[in-house]
Parts: sequence; structure tokens; C-alpha cells
Amino acid sequence: MGMGKYTGGDRKADNLARLRRVEGQIRGVQRMVEQDTYCIDVLTQVSAATKALQSFALELLNEHMATCVADAAAKGGAEADIKVKEASDAIARLVRS
Amino acid sequence: MGMGKYTGGDRKADNLARLRRVEGQIRGVQRMVEQDTYCIDVLTQVSAATKALQSFALELLNEHMATCVADAAAKGGAEADIKVKEASDAIARLVRS
Amino acid sequence: MGMGKYTGGDRKADNLARLRRVEGQIRGVQRMVEQDTYCIDVLTQVSAATKALQSFALELLNEHMATCVADAAAKGGAEADIKVKEASDAIARLVRS
Amino acid sequence: MGMGKYTGGDRKADNLARLRRVEGQIRGVQRMVEQDTYCIDVLTQVSAATKALQSFALELLNEHMATCVADAAAKGGAEADIKVKEASDAIARLVRS
Repeated sequence: MGMGKYTGGDRKADNLARLRRVEGQIRGVQRMVEQDTYCIDVLTQVSAATKALQSFALELLNEHMATCVADAAAKGGAEADIKVKEASDAIARLVRS
Repeated sequence: MGMGKYTGGDRKADNLARLRRVEGQIRGVQRMVEQDTYCIDVLTQVSAATKALQSFALELLNEHMATCVADAAAKGGAEADIKVKEASDAIARLVRS
Repeated sequence: MGMGKYTGGDRKADNLARLRRVEGQIRGVQRMVEQDTYCIDVLTQVSAATKALQSFALELLNEHMATCVADAAAKGGAEADIKVKEASDAIARLVRS
Repeated sequence: MGMGKYTGGDRKADNLARLRRVEGQIRGVQRMVEQDTYCIDVLTQVSAATKALQSFALELLNEHMATCVADAAAKGGAEADIKVKEASDAIARLVRS
């Protein structure tokens, strides 16, 4: 049931696969820099990797809200407030990054 | 308790005041353009207005999660899922705007 | 020829028209808040206004680079370096706002 | 003098070092996911990696403008226009990513 943890077999495997793709994109950018690829083409790949990271973050946040935040809100009390505040702060970091 | 509505006297007044400040910033940018102000100075003001709009959006989202989403989650059922999905979609729009 | 100024009749008129539309969007958001419109719908409009502001900034930056920065680079010297540095700083503010 | 290429020994080494740090951050996020780290902590690291990627992109763009774009502008003609347009498009992708 989560308990604020990042769980779920398929989801975990999916998320790891996404992160490995981003890692591959970053290594691809390194190769481009090593081979003196034209800056604009390097930037296009950096923008693609940034977008992939943001999509991953949004998916993770979505899961978190649908599980941890919703569970805490269902129980109510101080824990519910803490979870909402935490999620809001994480959203602000995402929007500003 | 909100029922998905944007309520609360003080908060409403605060939010309107913030929006009026952003409107004033946009009018300030118009005056700068009319007076042929140097582009870089215009851009600085546009960035400030954009940041103010994003802060307003984050504050509004925070209130929404602490009230509507938390209330719906406390009740559970399909409505809870809908509210979480709606909030996630709004967050994605903010992150991508 | 610009001289670092924001000039050009049509462009100026176009830019003012865009800013007035953004101002109208901000006033629209104020009306939504006054009428207790559902938060998610308010947020959608705030995201649209933010995107419109960013598009305006990108257009202005584009014009600036095609005129002031290019002119300064053509002349060379310290002024060219200053213009490029200024533009880079403005871009960083946009990306981070 | 660049000719649109990504050159310069120290800069290249610096940029590769930055990209390797981002790669390390992404692998760190993978470990967090594998170890079921709390979502909010994972998100904090994802935001940090996103910011690092954006800073890298801004630095690269800065170098590109100070070399390729400035060189092309100094020569003038169609090539100058193409370089400015290319840089503007890259900036738009960054702002929107």
C-alpha cells in the first residue's frame, strides 16, 4: 500500500527503464561533445533529455499523489497536511527547475 | 468546505491583489515597448511577470490540493481518482508552460 | 537600424497587440477568481497566459539577436562581447523563469 | 575559430566533466528507485539533475553565441541570418523543455 514508499513491480521496472533511457541520452550527449558535434545539435539532444527527465518526474509525482497523498488524506490529521505540503513543495521545485 | 470551488475571503482577496500586480507588470511592459526601451530591459520585466504568474499558480494549486483534492481523497471512490488526475494534469501544464 | 533600441513600426504594433492580449488574459483570470471558478480551470488559464508571455519573450529575444546582437558582432570589439553576454544572461532568466 | 564546431580543449573537458556528473546523478536516481526510496526524495534528485542539465545547456549556448554566432554575424550575409535563427530556435526549445 505504499506507506510513502516507491513500490509496485511493474511501475518500478517501467521507471527504471525510463531512467536508463535518460542515462543513455546523457551518454549520447557526451559522445557528441567528444566528437565536436555542432553545438546546436548537442543542444537539441540536451533539450530532449531534459524533457524526458521532466516527464519522468511528472509520472512519479502522479503515482505519489494517487497513492501516498491520497492515503494520507483519507486518514486525515496532521499527516495529511504534511503530505500535501511536501507534494506542493516538490511541484514548486519541478516548475522552477 | 470548498467543493472544488475557489473560496475563502482572505485568500480570494490576496489572490486578486496578486493578479492585479501581475496586470500592472504587463502594463509596465507595454509602456516600455511604447517608449522603445532597450530589449534586454523589457525582457527582464517579462521574466519577472512570468515568475509572478508561476508563483500565483503554485499558490493556487497548493490551496486546491489542501482543500478539494484532500476532501475528495478523504471521501474516496471515483471522485478521489478524478481529483488526483485533474491535479496531475494541471501540474503537467504548469511544468511545461 | 536599432542601435539597441526596440524599434520598427509594425513589429512594435504587433508586440503591443500581443501584450494587450496577455493583459486581457490576466483580467480574465481575475474575473474567474472573483466568480469562484473551479481552481483547475483558473490554473488552465494561468498556464495559457504564462505560455503567451514566454512566446512574446522569445519573439522579442529573436528580434534583439537579429538586430542589436548581430550589429554589435559585425562591428566587433568589446561591445560585441557585452551584447552576447547580455543576451546570454537574458536567456538564462527566461529559461529559469 | 570554431566554424560552428564545438571546440576548445579546456571547455570540452569541462563540459564532459559536467555531463559525467549529470550521468552520475541519473544513476543515483536509479539506485533510489531500486531501493524504494520515498518518492519526494527521488523527485528532489530529479529536479537537481534537470537543473544541472539546463545549466549545461545555457553554458553551451553561451559559448556558441560568443563564437559561432558572433563569427557569422561579423561576416554578415545569409549565414549570419541562419546562425541567429538556429540559435533562436534552440533557445525556444530550451525555454519550453
